[in-house]
Amino acid sequence: MSARAYTLAELAERFDARVEGDAQVAVQRVATLGGAGAGDIAFLANPKYKAEAAATQAAAVILAPGHVGLTTRPRLVHANPYACFARVAAFLNPHAPQAQGIDAHASVSASARIGKHASIGAFVAIGDDVEIGENALIYPNVTIYPRVRIGKNVIIHAGAVIGADGFGIAPDEGRWLKIPQTGTVVIGDDVEIGANTTIDRGAIENTVIGQGVKLDNQIQIGHNVIIGDHTVMAGCVGIAGSATIGAHCQFGGSSSVLGHLTVADHVAVTANTMITRSILKSGTYTGSFPYSANADWLKNAAHLRSLDAMHERIRTLERRLSALDKS
Amino acid sequence: MSARAYTLAELAERFDARVEGDAQVAVQRVATLGGAGAGDIAFLANPKYKAEAAATQAAAVILAPGHVGLTTRPRLVHANPYACFARVAAFLNPHAPQAQGIDAHASVSASARIGKHASIGAFVAIGDDVEIGENALIYPNVTIYPRVRIGKNVIIHAGAVIGADGFGIAPDEGRWLKIPQTGTVVIGDDVEIGANTTIDRGAIENTVIGQGVKLDNQIQIGHNVIIGDHTVMAGCVGIAGSATIGAHCQFGGSSSVLGHLTVADHVAVTANTMITRSILKSGTYTGSFPYSANADWLKNAAHLRSLDAMHERIRTLERRLSALDKS
Amino acid sequence: MSARAYTLAELAERFDARVEGDAQVAVQRVATLGGAGAGDIAFLANPKYKAEAAATQAAAVILAPGHVGLTTRPRLVHANPYACFARVAAFLNPHAPQAQGIDAHASVSASARIGKHASIGAFVAIGDDVEIGENALIYPNVTIYPRVRIGKNVIIHAGAVIGADGFGIAPDEGRWLKIPQTGTVVIGDDVEIGANTTIDRGAIENTVIGQGVKLDNQIQIGHNVIIGDHTVMAGCVGIAGSATIGAHCQFGGSSSVLGHLTVADHVAVTANTMITRSILKSGTYTGSFPYSANADWLKNAAHLRSLDAMHERIRTLERRLSALDKS
Repeated sequence: MSARAYTLAELAERFDARVEGDAQVAVQRVATLGGAGAGDIAFLANPKYKAEAAATQAAAVILAPGHVGLTTRPRLVHANPYACFARVAAFLNPHAPQAQGIDAHASVSASARIGKHASIGAFVAIGDDVEIGENALIYPNVTIYPRVRIGKNVIIHAGAVIGADGFGIAPDEGRWLKIPQTGTVVIGDDVEIGANTTIDRGAIENTVIGQGVKLDNQIQIGHNVIIGDHTVMAGCVGIAGSATIGAHCQFGGSSSVLGHLTVADHVAVTANTMITRSILKSGTYTGSFPYSANADWLKNAAHLRSLDAMHERIRTLERRLSALDKS
Repeated sequence: MSARAYTLAELAERFDARVEGDAQVAVQRVATLGGAGAGDIAFLANPKYKAEAAATQAAAVILAPGHVGLTTRPRLVHANPYACFARVAAFLNPHAPQAQGIDAHASVSASARIGKHASIGAFVAIGDDVEIGENALIYPNVTIYPRVRIGKNVIIHAGAVIGADGFGIAPDEGRWLKIPQTGTVVIGDDVEIGANTTIDRGAIENTVIGQGVKLDNQIQIGHNVIIGDHTVMAGCVGIAGSATIGAHCQFGGSSSVLGHLTVADHVAVTANTMITRSILKSGTYTGSFPYSANADWLKNAAHLRSLDAMHERIRTLERRLSALDKS
Repeated sequence: MSARAYTLAELAERFDARVEGDAQVAVQRVATLGGAGAGDIAFLANPKYKAEAAATQAAAVILAPGHVGLTTRPRLVHANPYACFARVAAFLNPHAPQAQGIDAHASVSASARIGKHASIGAFVAIGDDVEIGENALIYPNVTIYPRVRIGKNVIIHAGAVIGADGFGIAPDEGRWLKIPQTGTVVIGDDVEIGANTTIDRGAIENTVIGQGVKLDNQIQIGHNVIIGDHTVMAGCVGIAGSATIGAHCQFGGSSSVLGHLTVADHVAVTANTMITRSILKSGTYTGSFPYSANADWLKNAAHLRSLDAMHERIRTLERRLSALDKS
């Protein structure tokens, strides 16, 4: 499908790798170890798949120096085989989106400024005074509210909404008054935003998404959140208003952070975990309930409502036993 | 509202049921037991509602053989009253969507192939080389990325996004490299997809949704997930990349499955439960935290951070008591 | 940016507050305590920010009578400073959306009735027989299915879907039959609905959203849910079908309610909590797992699968100790 094939020697030179085996073998597509055949290049990043590596019919395999012996196929050897694979895949990808300009079915405000080489899909709505840097790739049905500012090389997937009002309401005699959300959203370069993800505008100051941040689908980012550079979040994460998230963090799917908290750089939060206090130290944090067969869960979970009583019974036992010991 | 009324006798013949009471009573609408009046047919599937059945003013009631005595109204008796009701409701439904062709406000690639009797709503964006089988019902603002393949009789609700890039990124010296998502999404016949649900395209191979799968709203299906036939998922479920879900499974709202796991056929996962290891055996699985009044939760939940210490104290007590017993 | 500035004296009269300090100081914008300068009015609602209040360069500060001494800047004193701020901010907001009629890129059924002073954005799809009251503000890419009825002064953010089919399916010999969703959605006055939130239509009777309800982004409301007046829900909440939620309730982010339950008025559910039984009494309810460092969680969470056994061991110890006491 791609325009042409490349030899391993060519790829090795281009991507700073070395070849083991026949450097003249040609590849033109990426494939999985299990699905690959002639013309396909696969990769091995996790030794868990060494059986697949041994059995692969791939024309070539990208792998790490320590795994060179796991296959006899021609190999492209690189210290970071997954990153090398990412580059090779991008290079060979016959479906890479091309800059197509602004679709005839998009609605772009006359006061918006869109950088060059943009691809803006059908039914994308871009409000007044929006700024978008060059090489933007915006898929259909995205909405960008007024005054949002977006950097270069940004990808926004279908259905995402950038700059809707934050959830600012004040109680007033049993009713709720809306607080105007007069800030906006500022998004750095090289950010990717997943399908149906929402990023709210700030209440007064701005919501800020750092450089190189990658957000998966259906993520909710509240108003005035700040996300540090190169942080990544998997699907369905929710970050409540005014939370400040560090750089180089990783959030598992459906994890969340309560409002007004701070999370340090290089923090990993595992899936389904809710962060309820600020995290000041790099590390991995977890707070999810282990599943079990429903019958077992019923027996065990019932005690969660009397853990404090259990604890008290242990203390009482300890005291009684100590008294007995003395007597 | 519907064009005409039908006698119980007609419905019984059409839907393979039998009549108790006056077979000539005519019905033209479905209603709840509590809300029904003349011309309305209601149903009783759960004996919990027997008081409502006894008091109903419905022209007729669909129920199971064992429940015939729960009302004196004319009855349509069927072994599966809920399924019988579903068929009767569909038959009488005056609002059933009609095939309306492709809305003038849709954007369909010239290279897409849409089967006959389709209804494609306003602001639906369908990319290049998409294939959609006959009788498709696609509501407004849906986005279908290039090369997605969809079977027959599929319903896709508003705002759904099919085929956006999976979340494939490789770490590279503190930054993240995008891995091209060169696979696509393949959806079987008779699938229904809820509003704002997202199904990502595969990284290399495809994401696959089996026949008869029903997905509620705001579900996130990661790249390379495989969902077996006739599996159903309630709202807000998240299935992480490369998970393989069996056939005839049921997922409660907000439940989730981590990446690369396998879930057997006929598994039920209850609401808010996260599956963290493969499930090889049919059954019901649960892992949610029981709620309580906040004050009670505060007292009990604190001990979760010292369960291991509690366990150790119990062991110590057991040893001391055994020592005492011996002495 | 706003058309003109107002003196504190003018604002005090308009918003029923009193002035401490120079009543002739003029303000034209709202700002945070930390970010404010000349021409800016800030607010102090939480004494936690008293240091910021003491240091602020704001032209004026809105605060409560008990906090008058926390700054020497001119003050607008009000018993509910946050509500007062909301009103002042709305009054000064230079970005307040104006009624702009129906965008040329919207698709509104000829049988829909839209009240006066509406603002309907690009790519909004409004189905047959929809009714929307006056002053509606509907952002781009919203979908409103047929027959939905919406009150006055309603704001609906981008990507929201109102009236998609509820998740009604009946099992029938290993397959699922769709149950037509013949009800609709009825939304009261003064409701705000967040971006990408979904509210399903009723199966037979209607889904009902009360007056003054405020829903954040990415919320899922199932079919036949009833939400009482002035209840608010933060992002990613899920309410399953046929749940009845009281008035004046507050739901934290990602909380949820199972189907067919009832929640009383004035109930607060904290973030990430799942309500699994009806709540008959006002109060605050919680059921989330406290997070910890991953290594600690691993140690502690393992015991959740043997809590029942731990409990049994405690009982055994108590019996043995009592036997020992007697002997």
